[in-house]
Amino acid sequence: MEFQGNCLITQSGGPTAVANASLAGVVTEALNYECFEEIYGSLHGTLGILAEKIVDLASESQQVVRGLRVTPGAALGSSRYKLRMSNDLDRILRVLEAHNIRFFFCIGGNDSQETAYRVSQLTQENGYDLRVIGVPKTVDNDLVLTDHCPGYGSVIKYVATCVKESACDDAAMGQGDLVTILEVMGRGAGWIAAGTSIAKRRDKPNDPPHLIYLPEVAFSADRFLDDVQRVLKQEKFCSIVVGEGLVDHDGNYVAVSGGQTDALGQALPGRVGDYLKGLVEAHLGIQVRTSKLGHGQRAASHCSSQTDNDEAFLAGQAAVRAAVGGETGKMVTLLRGDGDQYTCETGLADLSEVADAIKAIPHSWINDDGISLNYQFFKYASPLVTGEVAIPFENGVPQFVRLSYYGVERLLEPHNLD
Amino acid sequence: MEFQGNCLITQSGGPTAVANASLAGVVTEALNYECFEEIYGSLHGTLGILAEKIVDLASESQQVVRGLRVTPGAALGSSRYKLRMSNDLDRILRVLEAHNIRFFFCIGGNDSQETAYRVSQLTQENGYDLRVIGVPKTVDNDLVLTDHCPGYGSVIKYVATCVKESACDDAAMGQGDLVTILEVMGRGAGWIAAGTSIAKRRDKPNDPPHLIYLPEVAFSADRFLDDVQRVLKQEKFCSIVVGEGLVDHDGNYVAVSGGQTDALGQALPGRVGDYLKGLVEAHLGIQVRTSKLGHGQRAASHCSSQTDNDEAFLAGQAAVRAAVGGETGKMVTLLRGDGDQYTCETGLADLSEVADAIKAIPHSWINDDGISLNYQFFKYASPLVTGEVAIPFENGVPQFVRLSYYGVERLLEPHNLD
Repeated sequence: MEFQGNCLITQSGGPTAVANASLAGVVTEALNYECFEEIYGSLHGTLGILAEKIVDLASESQQVVRGLRVTPGAALGSSRYKLRMSNDLDRILRVLEAHNIRFFFCIGGNDSQETAYRVSQLTQENGYDLRVIGVPKTVDNDLVLTDHCPGYGSVIKYVATCVKESACDDAAMGQGDLVTILEVMGRGAGWIAAGTSIAKRRDKPNDPPHLIYLPEVAFSADRFLDDVQRVLKQEKFCSIVVGEGLVDHDGNYVAVSGGQTDALGQALPGRVGDYLKGLVEAHLGIQVRTSKLGHGQRAASHCSSQTDNDEAFLAGQAAVRAAVGGETGKMVTLLRGDGDQYTCETGLADLSEVADAIKAIPHSWINDDGISLNYQFFKYASPLVTGEVAIPFENGVPQFVRLSYYGVERLLEPHNLD
Repeated sequence: MEFQGNCLITQSGGPTAVANASLAGVVTEALNYECFEEIYGSLHGTLGILAEKIVDLASESQQVVRGLRVTPGAALGSSRYKLRMSNDLDRILRVLEAHNIRFFFCIGGNDSQETAYRVSQLTQENGYDLRVIGVPKTVDNDLVLTDHCPGYGSVIKYVATCVKESACDDAAMGQGDLVTILEVMGRGAGWIAAGTSIAKRRDKPNDPPHLIYLPEVAFSADRFLDDVQRVLKQEKFCSIVVGEGLVDHDGNYVAVSGGQTDALGQALPGRVGDYLKGLVEAHLGIQVRTSKLGHGQRAASHCSSQTDNDEAFLAGQAAVRAAVGGETGKMVTLLRGDGDQYTCETGLADLSEVADAIKAIPHSWINDDGISLNYQFFKYASPLVTGEVAIPFENGVPQFVRLSYYGVERLLEPHNLD
């Protein structure tokens, strides 16, 4: 008899503009194969498995599944829950067994792929047949072995658009005496900050953003102040982008958030934009305007990339096909073709090699000035933002969908295992 | 002989997503009348008149004029320069005379209309024939005698979209323990903060944003903390919008920016979002995420309102027609029709009545809870955000235009009056 059973999908870690497109890709593709008996989703990632909060996804309307393609966030709910060693794993195994889960799809970033890896190991060790496939998802773009991550193209399309629009305002208001600082996400790697460089027209290195500060380049306050003064001699304003995780020569955050830590116990960077503003005001006495797009930047469907959206959907479909083909313990990867014309197809990488690894921007893509990216980066990032997603508007605002459990908690009957 | 001469256009105050659409409206319409001999623009508002930095607008390509309709900012450059009594006015009169300026169009907000009013008075007193017409422009929506201001519809379309998208992320991450604060512009009036309420679906008062804090309602920290707790009992997260100019019962900003003042000497409000975050963290111990869209929110062409854009263009055209018809000392107003279907036509108001007055949100549009807007507001704001402007994208980012003076300073020959 063909291998078959139910499938369970989770979303975890920070949501993106296209994490639901991947969810739609998994659901849509799974319906094509009879080996998937039921298509379930777990609410808030691993927490939903532990608490047996599981919903039926096959019963969602086609309208909703189509709407997922343009709805930001994580429709199943997400979490950053880190597995505790024995208790949690035991519990997960029992829940999977109770619901006859035989396919497990985890849409997430580093931490989520780590979880997927451990679930995969756990079930193998216990002789429980489960096919585990990860679907990459992170605006941070820091997963290894994939050319890029779904979510990244959309976030940089949006932040670059914000820089470009803001620069129109800056150009109107500045007369060599205006500094504008945009703080963007990216704790460990500067991919998002670097991505704003696509706001520059090709061969116009003096276009905004004039200065980009990345976690990959140790920050020096003196050099920063010199940079700002140099730009203001040439331009009407100085447009600065900074990644939140900026560090000094000792690798410490230049701005820390009063000892706060995130749900995983990691130290949180503080308001680096405000820190830079303070430097400019104290040392140069120049007017500074700051903005911090916050987590809305990773949810900006209204300015998302069609290429990114298509690839997110594709990655979800590819995960299903891999599982059907007998693969397990893998994450879907995006592979770029070698030709001049951008092409992208999917591949697979071992979860063991993906889990817990971080891909930084290659140093060879950062110019010697430390505040701009070279043509290699441009060539890398540019195709990822191609195309504009047409999202539906109703009464002048975007129209998004929710899964039917939302607000109703329409859950599967739990097995009350404890 | 018919009244004729040259025309001068200025843009001043904070730019908007559609201030250049008004500029395009003036230029396009002026070309239809022979009484306009030359069409000039002054750089950086009044400063450009004082410094004789004047450019020829008729020589701009049609492509550029069309591009202005979707380019945010103020293509002529703006400023917040406040006229000094005698020196400046003398100088302005001499420059206007030297360039035979007979039509003066001022695209701006309160302060700019005040300047227009004074120029109008000055020239009348001196027997210099000049037709002065103001074109309303402000995201703050606080000009009197006009139903609304070009720029407002676009900014609230964008900030409401941000709230709605952010809420998708909040819904994924929150489980009754997440507070999200979005700080928006609006120093004197809460029009922008209030405008985010269009993110709610009609008859869904519990949709995000859950709490809206306006400068029109005196802030109470105790009531605020109660509000937050009440929302978190019902919802997975609490979405808060706050206008930067929030004041306490004594009318003082609840958060002030270290004694800073703006170019006009007005005290600047501080980071009110951070202030609220501090309250929640100190008293409720709940995770708070803040965002501050900054001045980019008023430049967000990529999410601007077609209705707003059309009306901004229309207002520019109407200013020209008014001047041709012999009017002076007026500002164009937008008048809403009485019918159920939204209609808008232009009117005229005396600059003397517009200058220096501020329109607050009617208290009858704010619910008794002080943190939400009623149907009256919805009916007012909803038509203003209708339609999406299709902006041109190139290589995945918006493509904007600049006037040909930019970076080149292609100015008219000055008369070196001093």
